[in-house]
Amino acid sequence: MLVDGVHFLFSNMPPHSIGHRAMAANLSDLAAMGARPVLATVALGVAPNTTEAWILEAYRGMATLAAEYGTRIVGGDIVRAPAAVFSVTVVGEVSTGRLKRRDGGRAGDTLAVTGPLGASRAGLELVRNGKRFAGERFADALQTFCAPVPRIREGAWLAASRAVHAMMDLSDGLSTDVQRLARASGCGAVLEEVPVHAAAVAVASETSADPREWALSGGEDFELALAVAPRAFPYLAGRFAARFGRRLYAVGRLTASEGLFVAEPGGQPEALQARGWDHLRS
Amino acid sequence: MLVDGVHFLFSNMPPHSIGHRAMAANLSDLAAMGARPVLATVALGVAPNTTEAWILEAYRGMATLAAEYGTRIVGGDIVRAPAAVFSVTVVGEVSTGRLKRRDGGRAGDTLAVTGPLGASRAGLELVRNGKRFAGERFADALQTFCAPVPRIREGAWLAASRAVHAMMDLSDGLSTDVQRLARASGCGAVLEEVPVHAAAVAVASETSADPREWALSGGEDFELALAVAPRAFPYLAGRFAARFGRRLYAVGRLTASEGLFVAEPGGQPEALQARGWDHLRS
Repeated sequence: MLVDGVHFLFSNMPPHSIGHRAMAANLSDLAAMGARPVLATVALGVAPNTTEAWILEAYRGMATLAAEYGTRIVGGDIVRAPAAVFSVTVVGEVSTGRLKRRDGGRAGDTLAVTGPLGASRAGLELVRNGKRFAGERFADALQTFCAPVPRIREGAWLAASRAVHAMMDLSDGLSTDVQRLARASGCGAVLEEVPVHAAAVAVASETSADPREWALSGGEDFELALAVAPRAFPYLAGRFAARFGRRLYAVGRLTASEGLFVAEPGGQPEALQARGWDHLRS
Repeated sequence: MLVDGVHFLFSNMPPHSIGHRAMAANLSDLAAMGARPVLATVALGVAPNTTEAWILEAYRGMATLAAEYGTRIVGGDIVRAPAAVFSVTVVGEVSTGRLKRRDGGRAGDTLAVTGPLGASRAGLELVRNGKRFAGERFADALQTFCAPVPRIREGAWLAASRAVHAMMDLSDGLSTDVQRLARASGCGAVLEEVPVHAAAVAVASETSADPREWALSGGEDFELALAVAPRAFPYLAGRFAARFGRRLYAVGRLTASEGLFVAEPGGQPEALQARGWDHLRS
């Protein structure tokens, strides 16, 4: 469920992007289990005075992305609401032997992510401020925020490997989501390298923000985080790069002791608070 | 999708009832196709300051009703929102040969409903005014509004009959929903008898309202409306009564000419506007 003012900015974003993001967030959850999408339903709440053109563009954003991954919107609902609300449900299929969950990680596993992080949060900064940053160097951040790519193909491929013990998608931020994966697996975690997206660095340099902080807790990058048998990691990462032309980044490891720690290269591990988004935090 | 202030009244209803209604509305859609529920997902938007107890009671309302029909809430989402929003998705199963849709009606078919109407709208009147009507005679209206019964068993049974050509559930009011069924079937419709629920008569008599109007356009009764081959109707209705201890009410018929008409007993048909709820009507 995505709500205007909480997950997106009705007034600052084209309806096509809002629809794309709503569908991407749901497809990403399937990707994290290694599943193939089969059908989608959409319940849409529309505020008074919403135009038909806006509604149609939002559906087009959802339907176009769904079609890219071989699925369709087959039903749903449309109701009046005080603010725009998108509730998307996607049903997927995965064979039992390949299904990945977040609770399968083991102490010692290498933690990895399917791409560099923080670009979505950087794009939010651009959209939120309504600033018109000129130049190519900001395009990636806007693109990642407005049209994130669910890692369906990568997820299905990774799920086929027995060396991948646990998987989830990064919707609420690396620090929050890795802590969830670690806890579900009865482990702690140490983050040793955080891959910061070049687009996050570019935007942060204009706004005095810390791009590493965006990468750690920005959320909505929709990359996958996984726990991999450490001995199998180099081979898996090599095959992943050959298959997808993308790097599989090692970011740390699961530990037998509880808690989430972050260690600068060569430094001592420091306890890290999960700083990502929590909807029920007051 | 059910939204506070549009579909329910956060402040006037216990969370258990709101949850029950949200699940009932979705199960009712399956009932109308003759399907058996298999799994449910729930996305819940909660306004700031919503208590954990409220949230748990709302989920209990949904889960209890789901369990009555052999299904469970298997996942979902919970997010912050400006007002409480329930988005429930239920997946069901029905064999292809039994699946009923709203577009299978034929001119001459008898239109029927699975119960008397208007009690839910009467219950809304009680809840909306916060009035404490004393006595048993108002209990049925409150019960129908707060804990509507999805006609899952009746729907599956009716779907097994080839004489039932089309089916839908009455969520937005008899006049609106019959018009939808007729249009989808390429027909018009005449309503000749509108079964008014005794509870609607009881409440209306206290509020100077017209209970027949509530039955025609009140909505959310969640009875099923069906188009039945006219020669098969008496036999079907007899078996239905024997099986469920409820009457199957003939309310009119589908016509070859377009439009929705209502005829008082012995009177001339008059054109009827669909007066039920339309979320996109300004």
